[in-house]
Amino acid sequence: MSIFNYFLKKEKTRSASVAKERLQIIVAHERNKRLQPDYLPLMQQEIIDVIRKYVNIDSDQVSVQLDNTDDCSVLELNITLPE
Amino acid sequence: MSIFNYFLKKEKTRSASVAKERLQIIVAHERNKRLQPDYLPLMQQEIIDVIRKYVNIDSDQVSVQLDNTDDCSVLELNITLPE
Repeated sequence: MSIFNYFLKKEKTRSASVAKERLQIIVAHERNKRLQPDYLPLMQQEIIDVIRKYVNIDSDQVSVQLDNTDDCSVLELNITLPE
Repeated sequence: MSIFNYFLKKEKTRSASVAKERLQIIVAHERNKRLQPDYLPLMQQEIIDVIRKYVNIDSDQVSVQLDNTDDCSVLELNITLPE
């Protein structure tokens, strides 16, 4: 199977799961001082733990992204919920 | 309204209060079944409690907004941090 086919296949499975239920959590910290400790990564697990009280979450269904710019840190959690 | 449009709209209102340090938490729940219990309001206090472990938050510095459309619930917390 070529890589091209691989992505084609991915694309298909992706559109199929569009109807899936999802949860997206975004924590944005706008800072005016640049040399502050960044606590967003530490919050991440605790926020997931809160959500887990209300819905079942597979750990492998959670994708985490952390973006930093000069004056803003953004933590993004994308969770696909079980059917 | 898609989540993407939601953030685009938010982006506009954001530029006004640039100086203060702020924390913004957005929890968006995309649903495919409409008649589900909405647990976002319940999560709200617990998420604030997590954040409170890392930063001091005045309760009167927290504004909470909950938007519901047919297939999406969005909980938004805006917190102005102490100087």
